[in-house]
Amino acid sequence: MLEVKNWTAKIPPVSDEARSQAAKRMNQLTKPPGSLGRLESLAIELAAVTGEPLPQCDPAAVLIMAADHGVTEEGISAYPPDVTAQMVYNFLRGGAAINALARQANAAVRVVDIGVASELEAESLRKRKVRPGTGNFAQTEAMTRDEVLTALQVGWEEAADLARSGTRLLAIGEMGIGNTTTSAALVAAFTGRSPMEVVGRGTGLDDERLLHKARVIEKALSFHSIDPSDPIDVLSKVGGLEVAGLAGAVLGAASHRVPVIMDGYISTVAAWIAAKIEPAVHPYLFASHLSVEPGHRVVLNDLGKTPLFSLDMRLGEGSGAALAIPIFQAACRILREMATFAEAGVSGATHE
Amino acid sequence: MLEVKNWTAKIPPVSDEARSQAAKRMNQLTKPPGSLGRLESLAIELAAVTGEPLPQCDPAAVLIMAADHGVTEEGISAYPPDVTAQMVYNFLRGGAAINALARQANAAVRVVDIGVASELEAESLRKRKVRPGTGNFAQTEAMTRDEVLTALQVGWEEAADLARSGTRLLAIGEMGIGNTTTSAALVAAFTGRSPMEVVGRGTGLDDERLLHKARVIEKALSFHSIDPSDPIDVLSKVGGLEVAGLAGAVLGAASHRVPVIMDGYISTVAAWIAAKIEPAVHPYLFASHLSVEPGHRVVLNDLGKTPLFSLDMRLGEGSGAALAIPIFQAACRILREMATFAEAGVSGATHE
Repeated sequence: MLEVKNWTAKIPPVSDEARSQAAKRMNQLTKPPGSLGRLESLAIELAAVTGEPLPQCDPAAVLIMAADHGVTEEGISAYPPDVTAQMVYNFLRGGAAINALARQANAAVRVVDIGVASELEAESLRKRKVRPGTGNFAQTEAMTRDEVLTALQVGWEEAADLARSGTRLLAIGEMGIGNTTTSAALVAAFTGRSPMEVVGRGTGLDDERLLHKARVIEKALSFHSIDPSDPIDVLSKVGGLEVAGLAGAVLGAASHRVPVIMDGYISTVAAWIAAKIEPAVHPYLFASHLSVEPGHRVVLNDLGKTPLFSLDMRLGEGSGAALAIPIFQAACRILREMATFAEAGVSGATHE
Repeated sequence: MLEVKNWTAKIPPVSDEARSQAAKRMNQLTKPPGSLGRLESLAIELAAVTGEPLPQCDPAAVLIMAADHGVTEEGISAYPPDVTAQMVYNFLRGGAAINALARQANAAVRVVDIGVASELEAESLRKRKVRPGTGNFAQTEAMTRDEVLTALQVGWEEAADLARSGTRLLAIGEMGIGNTTTSAALVAAFTGRSPMEVVGRGTGLDDERLLHKARVIEKALSFHSIDPSDPIDVLSKVGGLEVAGLAGAVLGAASHRVPVIMDGYISTVAAWIAAKIEPAVHPYLFASHLSVEPGHRVVLNDLGKTPLFSLDMRLGEGSGAALAIPIFQAACRILREMATFAEAGVSGATHE
């Protein structure tokens, strides 16, 4: 884990100075104090994270990591594993939900093959395959420790590259048939909760298959000997390549003071693991929505992050995070663009 | 009320054909059915309302009605009444919260003086003053029936004019020191609830002044003899010019098949009154956020509309509605821009 320590030492602390300047300005703007509610606290935290009293979150980008999961052999998904590769091509052609939502947010979409099982050919695809899908963790380890570290490194590099190219807000997403099973296994392994508490219907399972999914995880956890205090060990036993990649991306974004918007269950688990690897990343993490997957709430609560909205979404791809981008940018505009009472010649409160 | 009936007969029914085409397409798009949650139902309702199976909600506009309230003489607001006029100038110069939020949503802002107490001079202001502020309804009627009808007509015309100029989504907002008191009086008058149940702290009142605000409303309701089955009577006794104007605007927008996003307490009360005047307007109304004002929830529940988010906002101006515009436009993009399973060559579910 020496390599990991080397990166994570690079995450800067947030700026208390920028936060307090932003908070001061917020109370001078032409509105009753506090009347913009969570938009105000969001703007102030974005100031602290970016180190800018007048934060700028434009342009935003969506980073999608795609990978396959050997555990699909156990019949835990409503869709066949080929769909991972098919959806990558759909992302690259612009026909998926995340493309429509990213266009609305005026955000670029970067798609990384970090572990899709089949060979993919496309000019705009980032080809960073660590291995062609994980092993079936019901029967073997998902990947080696070295593969986990490589996936973290790939994620770090992709996010750092986006930051260097000007990205000021990063929405994270994923594609990987089977990855709600992987996420539930990770949450159960880290927290000791029973799989039944943290599994969900994913893309659409009935009651019987939901129970089967929980049992597959339960067996896997008793098959492996997992050290929950070692995130690299947990990821190697029951993790996913896109989960490790996104954890690395979160760390890489934070190292460049870029705030990260988490999406649903899988990307929030990845960010949560990043915070286990390096707690300094915590303030850089922002929740977008609360998904329908029951484990999402467990992980958000453990992180102490409150979602901005709850629209019964359960798609992944970064869809909820992309939908939240305009709210983050609106929060920045409040600080950057509103007039103060003095500037606008507006009278203050006569009594509170 | 003959004039009102003449307008309201012009509101078209929603299109069941467009709704069912949109719903059918929604299930063919490359995502598990239902996985975009409320974004899917929102898109389908926008199809029904606009009559377009592939609805378009761009460009959007924010319509702000500003007016003064005689009841401010009773000391029910934390801010002096001059702030109404000062904030109108702030809107016109682009320095208010609504300007920042509308710019984020790429929406135009139209400001209408429908009853500000002082004379306002500005080229970009819509000068439609019906009277310079309402009477103090604690002691006299707020306005005459004719003035209510004129304010409704002004609102109708302004919204219809925006629709004719290409607006496809209307966010409504208001400015008027004292207008949470007016809104609470209207809700108490229509529903028979006690004022204490439906008043809030507005721009920032302490406990004592909150109690005073409720008492002012209670006395006003016993002073007037109000017929709750006649919306024009209720508005004339304890209404506001911007409330009547926004009610008219909602009707005018619906007459052109333009969906309306309600903001907080005041604009939602206005839309609710529009639905009392003409129930056909109901499907055209969409909630954005749940505000901190306790009466807002009462009115949304009565309307049967569920907000998209709850961010502890209580500013008015159309701020929450403007923040919701990108969500509406994102919903439209889902239907318009996503590929179907067949188009994208993506496999469907093997089992549910």
